Amino acid sequence: MPDSPKSLWPDTRLLDLFGLTHPIIQAPMAGVSSTDMAIAAANAGCMGALGCAMTPPSDLAKQLAQVARSTNGPVNFNFFVHQEPDIAGFDNTEIRKALQPAYTAADLGEVPAPTAGASAFSDDILDILLARPPKTVSFHFGLPKPHVITALKDRQVKLIGCATCVAEAKALEAGGMDAIVAQGAEAGGHRGTFLGEPHLNDMGTMALVPLIADAVRVPVIAAGGIFDGRGIAAAFMLGAAGVQIGTAFMRATEATTHPLHKQALATSHDAQTRLTRLFSGRPARSLRNRLTDEWAHAENITAPFPAQRSLIAPLAKAALQAGSTDFHNLWSGQAGSRAAEQSTAEIIEHLVTSALTRLAR
Amino acid sequence: MPDSPKSLWPDTRLLDLFGLTHPIIQAPMAGVSSTDMAIAAANAGCMGALGCAMTPPSDLAKQLAQVARSTNGPVNFNFFVHQEPDIAGFDNTEIRKALQPAYTAADLGEVPAPTAGASAFSDDILDILLARPPKTVSFHFGLPKPHVITALKDRQVKLIGCATCVAEAKALEAGGMDAIVAQGAEAGGHRGTFLGEPHLNDMGTMALVPLIADAVRVPVIAAGGIFDGRGIAAAFMLGAAGVQIGTAFMRATEATTHPLHKQALATSHDAQTRLTRLFSGRPARSLRNRLTDEWAHAENITAPFPAQRSLIAPLAKAALQAGSTDFHNLWSGQAGSRAAEQSTAEIIEHLVTSALTRLAR
Repeated sequence: MPDSPKSLWPDTRLLDLFGLTHPIIQAPMAGVSSTDMAIAAANAGCMGALGCAMTPPSDLAKQLAQVARSTNGPVNFNFFVHQEPDIAGFDNTEIRKALQPAYTAADLGEVPAPTAGASAFSDDILDILLARPPKTVSFHFGLPKPHVITALKDRQVKLIGCATCVAEAKALEAGGMDAIVAQGAEAGGHRGTFLGEPHLNDMGTMALVPLIADAVRVPVIAAGGIFDGRGIAAAFMLGAAGVQIGTAFMRATEATTHPLHKQALATSHDAQTRLTRLFSGRPARSLRNRLTDEWAHAENITAPFPAQRSLIAPLAKAALQAGSTDFHNLWSGQAGSRAAEQSTAEIIEHLVTSALTRLAR
Repeated sequence: MPDSPKSLWPDTRLLDLFGLTHPIIQAPMAGVSSTDMAIAAANAGCMGALGCAMTPPSDLAKQLAQVARSTNGPVNFNFFVHQEPDIAGFDNTEIRKALQPAYTAADLGEVPAPTAGASAFSDDILDILLARPPKTVSFHFGLPKPHVITALKDRQVKLIGCATCVAEAKALEAGGMDAIVAQGAEAGGHRGTFLGEPHLNDMGTMALVPLIADAVRVPVIAAGGIFDGRGIAAAFMLGAAGVQIGTAFMRATEATTHPLHKQALATSHDAQTRLTRLFSGRPARSLRNRLTDEWAHAENITAPFPAQRSLIAPLAKAALQAGSTDFHNLWSGQAGSRAAEQSTAEIIEHLVTSALTRLAR
């Protein structure tokens, strides 16, 4: 790691706000980012992160304790704040009919009625956070309730929101977020859209970052399509104060990515991902696979987020056990092939070095 | 215009290749870019361009003569090299049925059978070009036939191709293109995809430019989502040798954009565009309007490109005459609201000044 005093970066607002050496945020990725990864990122001078949307409360308490024990660096705990799905009001006839051939072929019987799955952020989770406040909490799919924001800010927790358009960025700033991720459509996993129809918003990083930077005063974090120092340098030119990078860490030593998913990333090429609602009910970017290709006709009849997941999970599990990613949510940004099989620290060293070299030209 | 010697730009390959002062290419836009615009851009040290896909041969000859008379600067003539549609093999029952309510409401009678519309590049067009060779010719939707490339290169015409993924960029380089536009999905108008399914390729500029820059030796021109100096500076960081900018010129004094289209751009906001096949049969980015919203269900039953245009044109014409853009192809990149009502020279001055300021930081 080169000696990199703060002054080498063209914008130091995120460094000051979060106590970082480098303005690079490891993206929270449920099912991929581990405490080991988050701690390694924090100890390397960046922000580590854990995707806690599917983490049981008891595990969350353990993760908070482990992080507090292991690093003085900043680690971000990310939560989903979506509206709970109206499962009772959803007619599941069509989607169950569409998926029945896949269930039958996998010997899984009848497609069940969808169930709610992972819950949105709740006061129970808030209590766990307040018992051992982390340095940073971030939210996906909008703002939490005002009392959550007040309680966390009272404990000096810094808050990050995620915007996919200007109106969302303004709402997040007004709601008290300390920094805003401008998530371009290139990003892997769930698109954070919470105003308007998520499937109608495909704003790319190149246009989104400067438009949001013009609209808010808080620092903007560019996300989506950034995989090396060129993208990091570009983000600063666009007006961002730093970057959030996810896919580049998906094959990291510390990543809990399924081995078949790691392999799929390694052998992927560009233009091989899709934004699809088939995995969860909300648009998320995945490598194409059998589900996205053969069930494209079911894109508009999925169960409401995240209940759709309960319909796909049995298919994904059975396929993975048989050595196939046919139904697995192969989250990937648009440069998945560039995810390196290295330690988190090595990946960060490469990102920092290549960005500073590019910026120094 | 500031004094801007070549040395102020971080990459001078495009300047050398095309004889430019600034590495900015005004995008060819059929129906929008005029000879006045192209000449103004060329005289301002950039590359001007004309979208000739729908230009009758006699008009093309006149444009070539007018440009040759009016500027020594580089002007690019752009053509479509798509496969002619198989109209006879297309069952038009469904799309005609879907559009009938709109035809009936507009008092246009029965939806007609689709017709071919504008032809792809032909030897007749080649002959017109060879009679008075322009400085640059560019192609959309792939490569022209080899004898076209040979004939134009023999006359010292520089050639530009358009790629939306790495495989396309490699094919264009192998086919003899002198430079390659890396067109991110943020761009307005037709997506240039020619390998694979166009509607499955949504690569954004941020990921696409560095991936293509790594794959080819010819200069890469970044396009899509770039609307001011921040995007231009970012493009250089990503590895591009320059930029192609379209939407920022759509409200220019010299633009032949329909007045209602100019007005729609002025009042648009971000996240208001869609990639849609409804206008022409191929994915193209337009502001959302009544056609894209109320006929979204017809997205997959459009007539093959460009025959779909013959079905929509009567609706668009009738609506425009009644003062509405309900069915007009409102081409726009993802930052349409930033298109300024200025002369082409003023727009270029702003782009150059803001980019050089950003790069000098």
